[in-house]
Amino acid sequence: MNVDGNQMRPIWFDSKTRKVKVIDQRFLPHELVVMDLNTVDDTIYAIQQMVVRGAPLIGATGAMGVYISLVQDSAEKDNDYLVNECARLKSARPTAMNLFWAVDRVMRKAFAFDDHDERINAALDEALDIIEEEADNCFRIGRAGLELIEEAARKKNGDVVNILTHCNAGWLACIEYGTATAPVYAAFDNGINIHVWVDETRPLNQGSRLTAWELGKHGVPHTIITDNAGGHLMQHGMVDMVIVGTDRTSRSGDVANKIGTYLKALAAKDNDIPFYVALPSSTFDWEIDDGIADIPIEQRDPDEIRFVQGLCSNGLEKVLVPPESSVCANHAFDVTPARLVTGFITERGVCGASEKEILSLFPEKK
Amino acid sequence: MNVDGNQMRPIWFDSKTRKVKVIDQRFLPHELVVMDLNTVDDTIYAIQQMVVRGAPLIGATGAMGVYISLVQDSAEKDNDYLVNECARLKSARPTAMNLFWAVDRVMRKAFAFDDHDERINAALDEALDIIEEEADNCFRIGRAGLELIEEAARKKNGDVVNILTHCNAGWLACIEYGTATAPVYAAFDNGINIHVWVDETRPLNQGSRLTAWELGKHGVPHTIITDNAGGHLMQHGMVDMVIVGTDRTSRSGDVANKIGTYLKALAAKDNDIPFYVALPSSTFDWEIDDGIADIPIEQRDPDEIRFVQGLCSNGLEKVLVPPESSVCANHAFDVTPARLVTGFITERGVCGASEKEILSLFPEKK
Repeated sequence: MNVDGNQMRPIWFDSKTRKVKVIDQRFLPHELVVMDLNTVDDTIYAIQQMVVRGAPLIGATGAMGVYISLVQDSAEKDNDYLVNECARLKSARPTAMNLFWAVDRVMRKAFAFDDHDERINAALDEALDIIEEEADNCFRIGRAGLELIEEAARKKNGDVVNILTHCNAGWLACIEYGTATAPVYAAFDNGINIHVWVDETRPLNQGSRLTAWELGKHGVPHTIITDNAGGHLMQHGMVDMVIVGTDRTSRSGDVANKIGTYLKALAAKDNDIPFYVALPSSTFDWEIDDGIADIPIEQRDPDEIRFVQGLCSNGLEKVLVPPESSVCANHAFDVTPARLVTGFITERGVCGASEKEILSLFPEKK
Repeated sequence: MNVDGNQMRPIWFDSKTRKVKVIDQRFLPHELVVMDLNTVDDTIYAIQQMVVRGAPLIGATGAMGVYISLVQDSAEKDNDYLVNECARLKSARPTAMNLFWAVDRVMRKAFAFDDHDERINAALDEALDIIEEEADNCFRIGRAGLELIEEAARKKNGDVVNILTHCNAGWLACIEYGTATAPVYAAFDNGINIHVWVDETRPLNQGSRLTAWELGKHGVPHTIITDNAGGHLMQHGMVDMVIVGTDRTSRSGDVANKIGTYLKALAAKDNDIPFYVALPSSTFDWEIDDGIADIPIEQRDPDEIRFVQGLCSNGLEKVLVPPESSVCANHAFDVTPARLVTGFITERGVCGASEKEILSLFPEKK
């Protein structure tokens, strides 16, 4: 995507240096820092510390991690080693469905070969395939979601269509276009008059730091609001549609996404506003029925709440907000029950939020 | 209340210097700064810049402002002057019912006298009366709310009772005890096993800065969470009761309170958890029926969202979080419809959230 005239992705393979590179998203929007992933430990660090974040990008990074495990200095050639490194990669984040899926897929491909060099090539090719497929999925999600925004624009007779989004399910979280933002970019590029309400998304402020940065670089009109504000805006007719991403969605349509998504879904329901979840089908967990009971919710470092990073006269600083002695709890995700979801925007089109409707788009999962 | 062994209130009249003094809450929890209010301009500044905040304290400060208008260096003795200064005080914050009420009450008392010195004494006495009444109201609110917490504790057979609160409706917002926190302090002091989930309350973090500081100084177990987290905790049985304050409540029971309150009320309803609003009856606006349509919502400076204040190696600093070029919108309050409110905890006891039930406690307002 466009960043000051350069085409960028959040992860890429530099064929000259044969290094896997990622944007270190912890420094955005104030600094654009690129990090090399040289080892599985680097890769796990990048996933855990949110150098990279967002379900599809975590998956892509995990996929590249399998390749990295085979070429790092400490690489071994036996099967147990590879199984073990892949298990370590998969346990880096508990909620990320795409991570398990992508690592397993690349591992299986590698195991199709006995020769170590063939395994390396197979893993790299498969990881790059996953990356291209994710980009293509996001393109298709954008095309499917565009129809929903076009319909909203028709209803408003050309008045601005206001879309609310939570967290960053943009190209920084994916590869291109994003998931929740793909329909937004598609609508904007098609000349539809849109405006995005960007939830700041505490504690890590992925909305105000990343989504706002992305949208701004692309020229999409947007306004940052606190996570608290969406309900009020909906009560007063200032939101036409909510679109969010997801980290893991059950076959019944329960949506695990960044903490606070459930509250926005409740407000959308209470105000009769469509609430869409945009996702590539790799994010569905076909094994899980009851999302609230069965999707484990990651508890992250309380310091993510206690300290807020931003720019001051000394450059980037972290400041302590609450009293030093107060305890904080950092539940990172919540689950929005399917009954609050209007529909899913997938690479195969839009469907309602029930097992039956989901399976009508993905009949091979029946 | 207890602050490191000193009894403190957030506003007081120093009879030796004859100065009105307030805690400058902008520097909490990291610094305890006291500010003198010497002029009406100081008083308006203190209200607008949130040196003081919270409905009862804003009322008390406005009440003292009427006295200050009569003794400041630029004071004039004619009626128009006083009416005009009171109008300026009342317009400092648009949502604060108590401000209008308290300023009008002290102004009326002053106008009962023709002599300027008698007006000064009458205004001071009346303002001090309001302050003592607010403290007494909070004590009574605590006693009424204590019964609800005792009932919850009985149901849990002595297991910890988890109470969620949003913003700071504590003694810092009032005079003593607080409104939403008054039942909490009463329960804690009565040996009930309680724990408070403290919403950080973006954008100004009154929860993580002020409520956490207050509760910590009193020894009440508490955990700071993001504003996004409450819904998840409620889904998983980790919240037994929500208690919040209010800045203005309609006669039908619609509750204007800090932005985000509505989202917590929706989540409480969705999970069948009692949602209480604690308030002195001065916060009721008996003229308003439809809170959502008729309570004006203040839009505050977007820099409150863009910059976050906290402690770093250089002392207190403000850091810029979003991109410099992104627009922010800062709707400061929302309105929770009466249908989501379980009951009101008032200085006269607890009542349901309908005009009929409210008027049964306050029959003189029929």
